[in-house]
Amino acid sequence: MGFAWFKGHGTENDFVLLPDHDGTAHPDLSAELVAALCHRRRGIGADGVIRVVRSSAAGRSSPSEWFMDYRNADGSLSQMCGNGIRVFARHLVDQGLVEGPTFAVDTRDGVKELTVSGDRISVDMGPWHSGGLSAVSTESGTWQAREVHTGNPHAVAFVDRVADAGLLTHEPQYDRGVYPEGVNIEFVERRGERHLAMRVHERGSGETRSCGTGACATAIAASIADRAEPGATWRVDVPGGTLHVTVEAERTVLTGPAEIVAGGTMEWYR
Amino acid sequence: MGFAWFKGHGTENDFVLLPDHDGTAHPDLSAELVAALCHRRRGIGADGVIRVVRSSAAGRSSPSEWFMDYRNADGSLSQMCGNGIRVFARHLVDQGLVEGPTFAVDTRDGVKELTVSGDRISVDMGPWHSGGLSAVSTESGTWQAREVHTGNPHAVAFVDRVADAGLLTHEPQYDRGVYPEGVNIEFVERRGERHLAMRVHERGSGETRSCGTGACATAIAASIADRAEPGATWRVDVPGGTLHVTVEAERTVLTGPAEIVAGGTMEWYR
Repeated sequence: MGFAWFKGHGTENDFVLLPDHDGTAHPDLSAELVAALCHRRRGIGADGVIRVVRSSAAGRSSPSEWFMDYRNADGSLSQMCGNGIRVFARHLVDQGLVEGPTFAVDTRDGVKELTVSGDRISVDMGPWHSGGLSAVSTESGTWQAREVHTGNPHAVAFVDRVADAGLLTHEPQYDRGVYPEGVNIEFVERRGERHLAMRVHERGSGETRSCGTGACATAIAASIADRAEPGATWRVDVPGGTLHVTVEAERTVLTGPAEIVAGGTMEWYR
Repeated sequence: MGFAWFKGHGTENDFVLLPDHDGTAHPDLSAELVAALCHRRRGIGADGVIRVVRSSAAGRSSPSEWFMDYRNADGSLSQMCGNGIRVFARHLVDQGLVEGPTFAVDTRDGVKELTVSGDRISVDMGPWHSGGLSAVSTESGTWQAREVHTGNPHAVAFVDRVADAGLLTHEPQYDRGVYPEGVNIEFVERRGERHLAMRVHERGSGETRSCGTGACATAIAASIADRAEPGATWRVDVPGGTLHVTVEAERTVLTGPAEIVAGGTMEWYR
């Protein structure tokens, strides 16, 4: 018995992949199993689980052969994950399941375009929009932060050094009138020409090693601040590695490494 | 290709087990592979790796059939691990590799006696000795702490509430004259008759979910403070679960749950 599994990560956002090409291996993948697999001590440990299933087997009418069935670490469904879909794409390429270098992947947030170039994988993250400035505060200080939406809400604060944000063991304070559903907060340091570094506090997760939509929001905020031309590419250093974000007038493209570190079979006993 | 693996935990001290019964599967298990497997984002994630090997195949002259070849998460060799050996014993029992309920396991710290009773596994942790009091401090306060040695050095401080120790994101201050090689520091709350709760800051690791030798040190310090009779058993709540420690005049026995959550085969690509 047992089932196939892979583990992979993109800038240390990590995922358990569960191949289920025809939808018969995990027809009723439960929130309980997902949460158990993702538990970092009582399970394998991951930020999420991605079921690898053909769109047709997932009951989706889609032009792309593969559907990224993404689940959060708590077992809930998720629309999209910028680092997750890049790991998913790496898996498809490694296993010969797609013809590269450019292909489409279906997600709950619609069809995404992926491009593989050596060890880097790019994903078109789709439209964004921005708002005004409001204050965010940690125990170490208060900054004005730019409201940016990249599928989810972000507040991007420029700081002298990313360490200035402090420990980030508590959620920073923010304007709940601007962000009634919570917000991911980026603290961004300028390191050079079109070169940024960021730390991120994700709503519900605390500080994380990387955040794909957060890297995009960070580059967008810098583009606005610098009145950069559309099409400029920003290097964004995150704690788990380095991402690059190209900011177009109405969309962003996220590029970075993604790797599969292990794979095999698993019986789950609990 | 690939190799067999299991993942298990005892009060959320978690381990990757690598079966290598005759010593041919991992004859030269490298520190690099161990550290890579243990990395919580770029690997599987664990506090350590335990190679499951016959004592004879490990070149050990031992009365016990099985040798616990324990490696720390950084790849270095380790003498013993109180929660690790209980997970190791659970694996031996589950796989029918030992006759229960009592058996011996060889470790780099000598042969240990294990006893399995339902879902609980006990290990004789061997001799202990204690010293005097010295101060430990966090950003939240200063307490007098008892010096206790249970294979490694501990400083045990009684606090009103375990939360009083603060965030423990930094190493507490301690007397480097008393502990020249560093120390694990326990903050212990009394919850009832022979019922304690502890948080632990482990040297080199920070705050952890559990610490077998720390639970023993905690019960020893309470025994000394209460002038308890030898043979008394203490319940010790740790963040990852509940342990019980019997404090004899010259040794302790650590008891608690240990479970294998998954197992299968793995190819390691990186």
